[in-house]
Amino acid sequence: MPYEFKMTRHVEFAETDMAGIMHFANYFRYMEAAEHAFFRSLDLSVHQSSKEGMIGFARVHASCDYLAPLRYQDEVEIHLLVAEKGSKSITYEAIFRKVNASGKSSVGEVIARGRWTVVCVAKDRNDEQMNSVTFPADVNSKIEVAPLKMLDTKDD
Amino acid sequence: MPYEFKMTRHVEFAETDMAGIMHFANYFRYMEAAEHAFFRSLDLSVHQSSKEGMIGFARVHASCDYLAPLRYQDEVEIHLLVAEKGSKSITYEAIFRKVNASGKSSVGEVIARGRWTVVCVAKDRNDEQMNSVTFPADVNSKIEVAPLKMLDTKDD
Amino acid sequence: MPYEFKMTRHVEFAETDMAGIMHFANYFRYMEAAEHAFFRSLDLSVHQSSKEGMIGFARVHASCDYLAPLRYQDEVEIHLLVAEKGSKSITYEAIFRKVNASGKSSVGEVIARGRWTVVCVAKDRNDEQMNSVTFPADVNSKIEVAPLKMLDTKDD
Amino acid sequence: MPYEFKMTRHVEFAETDMAGIMHFANYFRYMEAAEHAFFRSLDLSVHQSSKEGMIGFARVHASCDYLAPLRYQDEVEIHLLVAEKGSKSITYEAIFRKVNASGKSSVGEVIARGRWTVVCVAKDRNDEQMNSVTFPADVNSKIEVAPLKMLDTKDD
Repeated sequence: MPYEFKMTRHVEFAETDMAGIMHFANYFRYMEAAEHAFFRSLDLSVHQSSKEGMIGFARVHASCDYLAPLRYQDEVEIHLLVAEKGSKSITYEAIFRKVNASGKSSVGEVIARGRWTVVCVAKDRNDEQMNSVTFPADVNSKIEVAPLKMLDTKDD
Repeated sequence: MPYEFKMTRHVEFAETDMAGIMHFANYFRYMEAAEHAFFRSLDLSVHQSSKEGMIGFARVHASCDYLAPLRYQDEVEIHLLVAEKGSKSITYEAIFRKVNASGKSSVGEVIARGRWTVVCVAKDRNDEQMNSVTFPADVNSKIEVAPLKMLDTKDD
Repeated sequence: MPYEFKMTRHVEFAETDMAGIMHFANYFRYMEAAEHAFFRSLDLSVHQSSKEGMIGFARVHASCDYLAPLRYQDEVEIHLLVAEKGSKSITYEAIFRKVNASGKSSVGEVIARGRWTVVCVAKDRNDEQMNSVTFPADVNSKIEVAPLKMLDTKDD
Repeated sequence: MPYEFKMTRHVEFAETDMAGIMHFANYFRYMEAAEHAFFRSLDLSVHQSSKEGMIGFARVHASCDYLAPLRYQDEVEIHLLVAEKGSKSITYEAIFRKVNASGKSSVGEVIARGRWTVVCVAKDRNDEQMNSVTFPADVNSKIEVAPLKMLDTKDD
């Protein structure tokens, strides 16, 4: 569906910290990876040339609520949803759920909830300046907002 | 003051991404580094033994608003403030300001604003379970909430 | 086979740097991920309890030769081989080959060659000291050295 | 001196892993940071425009020997030395020594030894191809090879 995507990952040793759990900053890398895999699933690119320069998607907001820890080798599903869509920006939600538990957590437990907003920007090669622009036609036509009932009700 | 701390960092090559700017997840590492340096400045430890096991500070929420990009070798000041304090949790704010501009930004420009909440937890060594506990006495007595006028008015 | 393992990965946006290529330190994370996946393929754990404390595998040497760059979304195969095995240490080799080229490289091109040595260590929980120990029986019996002809002839 | 540089760093929480020590891949980030700080100390840039395109320094080899672990908040000195210099390449060595011990190690203990080679490359903006080129004049004139007695005798 053009409003959601699911991917799974195993937590790697290098992603843990001395507390024995996945470091909190790495959840944001997982969110971005899910967003990019979502684009690939729609045959869209997060990095493309246009007449305005290189088009990309700059993050203007990112947040995450952490409900339970992830440990080394845990398998986690990241469920990405399109929460909002404007002419230049998209807000995503991601729900992290444990798939295989290496510890005592029940399978399917919600581990974390993320929310972030990207703005479409064009970068002039000489100027190095980034300016917000409307989405390329393919991004605009292919991506939809998820049904309200699928989205998190919590305000961010 | 026991409610704020300032540190500066240079953006490193390894912290940039192919868009030529600091990767958005790294801001969360800077926030954590500022929090830990704040603790050191008060002669407190973020990782200590207690009769309840190892005491640590687990993140339950983290967010960041990105206003302008940071580039390689930019010098950035992270101004940490204690926004809220309970018996078991602290909410921090961080304001990122550019110190030396490698590009065209004016000095002092606000680059990003972060906000995150940590909960004091004890980890039973055998159990691997984390339980929230009240702060150690030194943390409780030394840390104060910043004056309201210093804090960001934006809701998170 | 108990002396080799192949895994593939896509280069992620967060793994690139401002030069537009995968940052060189990330190759070492890929090597470790391949080593751990190799262990899982043999139903072995890189982190287990024993009567001597927690058993782990500490790196004492790691090196990589970089022959061609990897870019965002490149698919790369990491071919892990057991190059040497003692009673307490294993030396691995990894050959990085491009699977899908996003650029101009031909498919199958060797991107990089890594080599690293791990030593089996036990960590006393109270002491925090790490001491080298002989492999657990399952590690010793299951892992073999690859045939010489499969290994890189280059000295490291 | 134009053949050496010393910098110190504190190991950060995000740089540790579940083994409780600094993750081995992060030593390579420290080496690169020392190399770049060395360049800055000589008023040189690792990233500059030239008539051949953008000039940079691509890593073709990197290695590290790990002698003792680093833990959270350890202060470590990275002593960078220029081991070899050609018309297009430089080989560096780095010696990691502990400054303040959080554990039981004696001050000044050698923690790790790194060695890596960079090649000067020019990147055609349209082509995205990287070609090796001779050093810019300022790099060539300012950087010298360290006296033999300062260098590690171990072959890599």
